[in-house]
Amino acid sequence: MAHINVPEGVPGIRSLVMFRPETGKPLYELAQILLRGESTLSPAERELIAAYVSYRNNCTFCYSSHAAAARWLYEDDALIVDEVLRDMQEAPVSDKLKALLNIAGKVQILGTEVKQVDIDAAKNLGATDRELHDTVLIAASFSMFNRYVDGLASLTPTDPEAYAEMGVRMAKGYTLPPNPSKQ
Amino acid sequence: MAHINVPEGVPGIRSLVMFRPETGKPLYELAQILLRGESTLSPAERELIAAYVSYRNNCTFCYSSHAAAARWLYEDDALIVDEVLRDMQEAPVSDKLKALLNIAGKVQILGTEVKQVDIDAAKNLGATDRELHDTVLIAASFSMFNRYVDGLASLTPTDPEAYAEMGVRMAKGYTLPPNPSKQ
Repeated sequence: MAHINVPEGVPGIRSLVMFRPETGKPLYELAQILLRGESTLSPAERELIAAYVSYRNNCTFCYSSHAAAARWLYEDDALIVDEVLRDMQEAPVSDKLKALLNIAGKVQILGTEVKQVDIDAAKNLGATDRELHDTVLIAASFSMFNRYVDGLASLTPTDPEAYAEMGVRMAKGYTLPPNPSKQ
Repeated sequence: MAHINVPEGVPGIRSLVMFRPETGKPLYELAQILLRGESTLSPAERELIAAYVSYRNNCTFCYSSHAAAARWLYEDDALIVDEVLRDMQEAPVSDKLKALLNIAGKVQILGTEVKQVDIDAAKNLGATDRELHDTVLIAASFSMFNRYVDGLASLTPTDPEAYAEMGVRMAKGYTLPPNPSKQ
């Protein structure tokens, strides 16, 4: 049971956003811009970064749902997602994406863990300032979302099928759930 | 020097928001609602939670600026801020605020660190669901802001006077810096 009185049966962050729509609005806007807005990183790659950070933070709801979204977006290459979560350095993704995932992993620990050598490695593989910015902010924002979801003990489904369905919905974009006070 | 090409001489998160105003907008909205919006926790108490989490994350820019804002807002009781940062349990704040700071400190580590006993202790001292929600989200969001600011190595002033000035400005609220591309 969640630590506060959120709508029953609604999983994860959606229940928290229904409890407090005022803060839900900027949180969903941030997710939509970072994960679906115009970018040279594909939505699949950005969902993979989100899932990678959430997995390292051991947030079952966030990594299960964002891994599901990434699998759906990678289509025929869906297995990449699980290979990255298992062993990022050995996974069949580009060296540039590995360099960005390495930075995201450092941010997950703490911002000061990101060193000039990590940035230089990514830049030498073609990462732009905008890609570096967005990678750091995706990793930082999931360090927030993970803590928000688990810190209030929101409902975490255990059925993998529930996450597969969520992934399909999330792939289409992040829109606020209905505001119960306005129904 | 920052890891990416942000406006020179602009400290902390403001430089990052000027680099990427699209994500800056929801980030500033979130800070404004959480720290200045309608709440039964005073702006001083909420800035103190933000400073406490940032101090534990060793983010010099964030803890220095939010401690300065909290000192300004606490007015004659400004010394409370430094006492909380030095030893929260011994500081002259209410038991209820200590229970909320305890939860914020757990969220700073990881969401799953918050246990039912922590929540019960705060509720028994009169904390409402909304206060618990906002405490967890302030702590989670500063776990993001700290990583964002340090992960991109944004400019961190060393002069205490610079933070005192920032604190006065921040006490008035969080408004976006000018968008350089529109000047």
